[in-house]
Amino acid sequence: MPYVNIKITREGATPEQKKQLIAGATRLLQEVLGKNPQTTFVIIEEVDTDNWGIAGETVTERRKKGM
Amino acid sequence: MPYVNIKITREGATPEQKKQLIAGATRLLQEVLGKNPQTTFVIIEEVDTDNWGIAGETVTERRKKGM
Amino acid sequence: MPYVNIKITREGATPEQKKQLIAGATRLLQEVLGKNPQTTFVIIEEVDTDNWGIAGETVTERRKKGM
Amino acid sequence: MPYVNIKITREGATPEQKKQLIAGATRLLQEVLGKNPQTTFVIIEEVDTDNWGIAGETVTERRKKGM
Amino acid sequence: MPYVNIKITREGATPEQKKQLIAGATRLLQEVLGKNPQTTFVIIEEVDTDNWGIAGETVTERRKKGM
Amino acid sequence: MPYVNIKITREGATPEQKKQLIAGATRLLQEVLGKNPQTTFVIIEEVDTDNWGIAGETVTERRKKGM
Repeated sequence: MPYVNIKITREGATPEQKKQLIAGATRLLQEVLGKNPQTTFVIIEEVDTDNWGIAGETVTERRKKGM
Repeated sequence: MPYVNIKITREGATPEQKKQLIAGATRLLQEVLGKNPQTTFVIIEEVDTDNWGIAGETVTERRKKGM
Repeated sequence: MPYVNIKITREGATPEQKKQLIAGATRLLQEVLGKNPQTTFVIIEEVDTDNWGIAGETVTERRKKGM
Repeated sequence: MPYVNIKITREGATPEQKKQLIAGATRLLQEVLGKNPQTTFVIIEEVDTDNWGIAGETVTERRKKGM
Repeated sequence: MPYVNIKITREGATPEQKKQLIAGATRLLQEVLGKNPQTTFVIIEEVDTDNWGIAGETVTERRKKGM
Repeated sequence: MPYVNIKITREGATPEQKKQLIAGATRLLQEVLGKNPQTTFVIIEEVDTDNWGIAGETVTERRKKGM
């Protein structure tokens, strides 16, 4: 009964891509550890680029620099 | 000083229901472990049904099937 | 299909108390929001008192002061 | 490669303040533990005052009382 | 720069299996969303079966029943 | 009433360093957002290097390569 939490920046992930993340993560847990998909949870959290920092600066700032 | 994080799908929980969750979780920690309510945090996070997966599919898909 | 994460300091919670927390949190979600217990997850995390801070000091320090 | 998650109530933190939190947390990990800023993540989550509870009541209720 | 947190029960996952989870989750984010593996974090947390509840009971209890 | 969660690899952080992280994070929230230290929580989680992945490999592997 695994729990998977995926945090990504909010930059336009589509419902179709989210389905793929959920299906893929569920399959991964089944293949590697034999976990039952019926009790596998996957939660995707989208975080504003102002609220995500790496290397001491926001992703908003990094995007402006083309990073 | 417990910390309780409750994640639910965003499907219309009302402010009154949230109050009940917060009061109930705080009381539970007090009754079971004697924790001081003054320093008990409860944070409710509501997650879009597109972003929550179980059994390899999104809750959006499950709701369409009447699950 | 709620997910509840309870963090407490590691100070001797017994298996019986953990059962009560799990049963109580599951019941709370069912009573307040009608959530199905079969797909309610509760995860308890116990944190060393050296690793938990409140008011700028560790719980280890606070316990020494009788707090 | 630390990961820092900061949860605050959604009460008007500005982009500039978020930058300061991200820069400050990254610097703290570098100064105390020598962690490389290039692989330090800081994620800020803003939580509605209806969804944050302390002492058994929501922050919304506490704000009304002037707390 | 995604962050993936995988929680599983502590029931003997090997270092090799953990490597597969980390490699697989990183590849998934790259394939579905084009995320850069260099800044993808995956953190696996193993939770004692006494501390994980589903359907209102601990996994310890469920394992005794052969579930 | 902020909540700060710091995850680091388990590689020998001392109680003194943890105190500094807790005091520093609490001060940061006070200075940037005027948050009350009395209700600021900081929780440090130490993660085994086998359980932390970056760039698709475990920190254990990276340490062997001198990274």
